[in-house]
Amino acid sequence: MAAPYELIYYTGVPGRAEHIRLALEEAGAAYTDTGSLGSFDQVRKAVTKYLTERKPEEEENPPYFAPPMFKHGDLIISQTPNILLYLGPKLGLAGSREGDVYRVNALALTALDGLSNEVHDSHHPIAVDMYYEDQKEESKRRSQEWIKTRLPKHLGYWERALTSDDSGPWLLGSTFTYADLVLFHCLDGTLFAFPKAMEHAEKSGKYNHVFKHWENVKARPNIAAYLASDKRQKYDWGIYRYYPDNDVVLE
Amino acid sequence: MAAPYELIYYTGVPGRAEHIRLALEEAGAAYTDTGSLGSFDQVRKAVTKYLTERKPEEEENPPYFAPPMFKHGDLIISQTPNILLYLGPKLGLAGSREGDVYRVNALALTALDGLSNEVHDSHHPIAVDMYYEDQKEESKRRSQEWIKTRLPKHLGYWERALTSDDSGPWLLGSTFTYADLVLFHCLDGTLFAFPKAMEHAEKSGKYNHVFKHWENVKARPNIAAYLASDKRQKYDWGIYRYYPDNDVVLE
Repeated sequence: MAAPYELIYYTGVPGRAEHIRLALEEAGAAYTDTGSLGSFDQVRKAVTKYLTERKPEEEENPPYFAPPMFKHGDLIISQTPNILLYLGPKLGLAGSREGDVYRVNALALTALDGLSNEVHDSHHPIAVDMYYEDQKEESKRRSQEWIKTRLPKHLGYWERALTSDDSGPWLLGSTFTYADLVLFHCLDGTLFAFPKAMEHAEKSGKYNHVFKHWENVKARPNIAAYLASDKRQKYDWGIYRYYPDNDVVLE
Repeated sequence: MAAPYELIYYTGVPGRAEHIRLALEEAGAAYTDTGSLGSFDQVRKAVTKYLTERKPEEEENPPYFAPPMFKHGDLIISQTPNILLYLGPKLGLAGSREGDVYRVNALALTALDGLSNEVHDSHHPIAVDMYYEDQKEESKRRSQEWIKTRLPKHLGYWERALTSDDSGPWLLGSTFTYADLVLFHCLDGTLFAFPKAMEHAEKSGKYNHVFKHWENVKARPNIAAYLASDKRQKYDWGIYRYYPDNDVVLE
């Protein structure tokens, strides 16, 4: 019997693990998810217990810095893009040409850097361990600068990426990969965090392939079913947060 | 004849490409480096030209967002950890057990997140496109918070990682990998950026394996020879910058 896929992550927001859930859901793969075990405290206990009670044969894995973690047999690994890299070929979501795993990984890392980490830092520019309220002014300033200089740079890059291979609508042309899922969720979260700025970007007409890509991924049958289910958690206090003061339109 | 390894990056600081140089130097591999072509402007032209004049067979690679890039035959890939992932097994620097490439990649990503990206953001908390001088107060505040809460968290994690497998001094015990090189350069840069804070951390005695690891990597013959050569560029305006106001000792 094959080892099960086990996702180890907190609950309450989609969080960094969402990229991994989307890949598993797209492929229709069976998996367990500590995030669906119950209340926040129950889940936190499960995540902690899971990690402190490793079996001897699992101990060849280095310690982890932060969830998500992923367990498959004796292998336990951390870091979202690393887990996707591991799962990608197994789920048929990492392309098929020689070198595609590296092309897909580069795209995933670029999306996570630009439209996940940078968006997170917009509400925590001074310190991740401090409350937003204690860095509100800096957060506003950072968000405005981000919307002015970085958002167009990122959207422009993805527009170029989506038009560089005209064999199909995906980042690798006709081949759908997990990089498309990562880009989708990054755009989805940025739409939640900065709805006015993103609407303004959409209306500019400069990024038509980007917004169309978001719609195309959302409409894939397994993704649409997952997003409509109660497994899809709501945005709240996680990476993507909506603070009206930060969401500006710059002409 | 095997395709050459070609590193495509700017010059003037070690930068993100340094992790890739260290891996190639440790393995004694031959490679070309646009960074050593001449003046900053000459190098910039070479980087740009390289990318705009791709041969038809190279065009199946998606566009890149930012250097470093790495070319090997028709494959051109970006993103530092992705390039290391590609090179690691070829250079014998990615472990040998099943799953080691994912263990090594997780360690490299964790070091780059915590001791490269976070250190960079300490001098650019508001916007990467703005001058340091225009975000100096925020930079000071962010650095102090970082030294107080994040630096001990990161050093504590690496101390745990280095003591979890007692078969040898490296992150995977007796097996030296590129994750050791990434950690080394991240520590080296953090020592440059925050010399007083790091000296204080070292003297606490809590992170003896971490500081010893930095010394051990530095003493490896190929690394020592490289660091003493003029190929090793000096820290300056890059990721790791020394601003005395930011370097504080917190009791």
